[in-house]
Amino acid sequence: MQETKVVLPDREIPKQWYNIMADMPNKPKPPLHPGTKQPIGPQDLSAIFPMSLIEQEVSTQRWIDIPEEVLNIYALWRPSPLYRAHRLEKALGTPAKIYYKYEGVSPAGSHKPNTSIPQAYYNKAAGIRRIATETGAGQWGSSMALAGSLFGLEVTVYMVKVSYDQKPYRRIAMETWGATVHPSPSTVTNTGRKILEATPDSPGSLGMAISEAVEDAATHDDTNYALGSVLNHVLLHQTVIGLEAKKQFALVGDYPDVVIGCCGGGSNLGGVSFPFLQDKIQGKNVRVVAVEPISCPTLTKGEFRYDFGDTAGLTPLMMMYTLGHNFMPPGIHAGGLRYHADSPLICQLYHDKLIEAVAYGQTGVFEAAITFAKTEGIIPAPESSHAIKGAIDEAMKAKEEGKQKTIFFNLSGHGYLDMTAYQDFLAGKLVDYEYPDEKIKEALKELPVIE
Amino acid sequence: MQETKVVLPDREIPKQWYNIMADMPNKPKPPLHPGTKQPIGPQDLSAIFPMSLIEQEVSTQRWIDIPEEVLNIYALWRPSPLYRAHRLEKALGTPAKIYYKYEGVSPAGSHKPNTSIPQAYYNKAAGIRRIATETGAGQWGSSMALAGSLFGLEVTVYMVKVSYDQKPYRRIAMETWGATVHPSPSTVTNTGRKILEATPDSPGSLGMAISEAVEDAATHDDTNYALGSVLNHVLLHQTVIGLEAKKQFALVGDYPDVVIGCCGGGSNLGGVSFPFLQDKIQGKNVRVVAVEPISCPTLTKGEFRYDFGDTAGLTPLMMMYTLGHNFMPPGIHAGGLRYHADSPLICQLYHDKLIEAVAYGQTGVFEAAITFAKTEGIIPAPESSHAIKGAIDEAMKAKEEGKQKTIFFNLSGHGYLDMTAYQDFLAGKLVDYEYPDEKIKEALKELPVIE
Repeated sequence: MQETKVVLPDREIPKQWYNIMADMPNKPKPPLHPGTKQPIGPQDLSAIFPMSLIEQEVSTQRWIDIPEEVLNIYALWRPSPLYRAHRLEKALGTPAKIYYKYEGVSPAGSHKPNTSIPQAYYNKAAGIRRIATETGAGQWGSSMALAGSLFGLEVTVYMVKVSYDQKPYRRIAMETWGATVHPSPSTVTNTGRKILEATPDSPGSLGMAISEAVEDAATHDDTNYALGSVLNHVLLHQTVIGLEAKKQFALVGDYPDVVIGCCGGGSNLGGVSFPFLQDKIQGKNVRVVAVEPISCPTLTKGEFRYDFGDTAGLTPLMMMYTLGHNFMPPGIHAGGLRYHADSPLICQLYHDKLIEAVAYGQTGVFEAAITFAKTEGIIPAPESSHAIKGAIDEAMKAKEEGKQKTIFFNLSGHGYLDMTAYQDFLAGKLVDYEYPDEKIKEALKELPVIE
Repeated sequence: MQETKVVLPDREIPKQWYNIMADMPNKPKPPLHPGTKQPIGPQDLSAIFPMSLIEQEVSTQRWIDIPEEVLNIYALWRPSPLYRAHRLEKALGTPAKIYYKYEGVSPAGSHKPNTSIPQAYYNKAAGIRRIATETGAGQWGSSMALAGSLFGLEVTVYMVKVSYDQKPYRRIAMETWGATVHPSPSTVTNTGRKILEATPDSPGSLGMAISEAVEDAATHDDTNYALGSVLNHVLLHQTVIGLEAKKQFALVGDYPDVVIGCCGGGSNLGGVSFPFLQDKIQGKNVRVVAVEPISCPTLTKGEFRYDFGDTAGLTPLMMMYTLGHNFMPPGIHAGGLRYHADSPLICQLYHDKLIEAVAYGQTGVFEAAITFAKTEGIIPAPESSHAIKGAIDEAMKAKEEGKQKTIFFNLSGHGYLDMTAYQDFLAGKLVDYEYPDEKIKEALKELPVIE
């Protein structure tokens, strides 16, 4: 019988997160106040985040302890299994070995609870009663709802209206875990009411939902805000993925030549790759590849400069590869990859050529997803399927070159709550949309110029 | 850090299935030919099943080897984890220890692939090109579609029309794995066409869908039929659940006082409990409890006698607790528990008082499901939630009596493809329907009397 996966007992869950800030050759430039354009301090964030998370956001300490209460909840699904994709390799006829880490085993079906759990823990410890957050298709909102239910925190989710109406499954999951879900724009906040006054049938956007959640948190003393990607502390929490994977590779006596993750805001890519990048910075020969959609080619076509995190320009300015914060391409099914920029950590590492990036169209990505489902069984999330496509391309290159190679990708979530995307693909309804260069140039002209 | 789950490496997957026929004090009475009412022989089944499965159906050999090709695919998700429900225990304030085996880790989200995989394997080995089967809400159809894709078998699924229309997610999953799905009644079979001629807007039923799938298999040489529950070989394949659980309990130095499973056709209950019943038959003090809905109270209110497996009366007559094969209660959300009878093995063991049974209304079951989701994280399938309700009741009894007790239930699947059931529950739309005794009496009058 062939060995298919490496599982680890609960006690092998990493006890510390890895902070890549300690090892980066160039630290990211500081975030700037949206008004003064001066570097922000902890006090600027304290209205919406607990001090413990703000400290993690700016820490340069290499290892940060994971609280025992968080470890006990991680154990509901962690360590996640590392799979050897024997059947996919055989179908491709590749000499490469393909491994994947499966984060869909979490109760919310993705890697997102790796950070929603500690965020809930630190907010609860700081005496916060309620969390306000936003969600697009619902992956982050459902992970925050889960975390709230496990720590006894109320959770209010502003869900982009078009998803609220069209994708009820994740909304119902959030409600099952006890969260309150408002379609955004909502009548609950000033921001929402203003938008509805001007555009009563607004379909909403992630930018609007962020503004509503931030307003809710900023205007209620007992309420904080939580973000599911981009920020340093979020990527920090996700490093349990890569840390476990390194243990699992050691157990099978292997090590990846290339580590692949899809990249929307950057949290799953950072989580899986940072522990390997630590080795790379010390001279180890390992590549890290970010996979993004051609409809949102942040790293592959964006510009490295200061931009806002949201559409309205209310968040701090961060140094990122960006397509401009007014970026608004047609919808694709990998909703989690539609962000106009990326985590400042990922962007700095890409700028320093420690990370590579490729972009694919969605039809090729869904073909890869179907090949994966038919060989490995799991139906992958549309976002995660970008990593699968990246891994298959690397494996086919190895075949052409007749080279042995070890390929490792992060399967960040399953697709069982995204089946309408598969329906559209199988019905031939998906098209590839490449975001035009001129649009990017135009959008970047609107950005503030920072000296 | 507290230990939450027991995981086992791939090599600990059981290498043999356990056949309870070897140890039953009374063997089940033989199935009878629907026409002659005489015991059927292997040749009566060979038009729709491969001989290897027919042999397993009648075998009294205690241990049956699992083929290596099946073990390699089991390893895509097996061994499944055994959880200690620390957080649920705490919420209930019970002195009891609660454990559950989680079968939702399979790519189809339930225990069903434990048998669809070997069924596909044996059919492929027998030179069969295609499998025809039926499905209600889609749990079994999706498991067979998955198995077909992994063994290169075509799969045709007749899906009850009302589910085909109202529950698209599982249909799309089947299509993603490459299966062809027909709404039943369909225009593909004589049975279907006849029904549609008489009732063009028929919503379909599981009985009709079975008739279509059996006709398809019986009229095509390269096609066989596959069933997801009830039959002996199906329950045999499911015993990997209980066999793994016994290893896992041994590792933590514990053993259940009571083993609980929901019961529709009986496959997950048989799978989890038979290895423990082997101990019970040898004198060990362990209870086994079947949990069914009060709207389909097969064991708790049915009669032990010969009945057909389908509505049309085309299948062999089997000795079962039954509500009559014309049983048709209003829909409940636990579609997998709506079968009019149960596995002959389960029924004989219940008759011999080796298994107990309880029945619950669906609102209490969903309350238990929500309590579970909010404490343990996983959103359970409506069927599996019956077992949760059973376990919670045992735990509350232990609390009342101030007794230490070890409770073990099978969490046979997750509910992420059944979220509309939760929506209806949260909106207060679910009602409890108790199937009336008079209706059962009437239905049983129509059954053939066997001397």
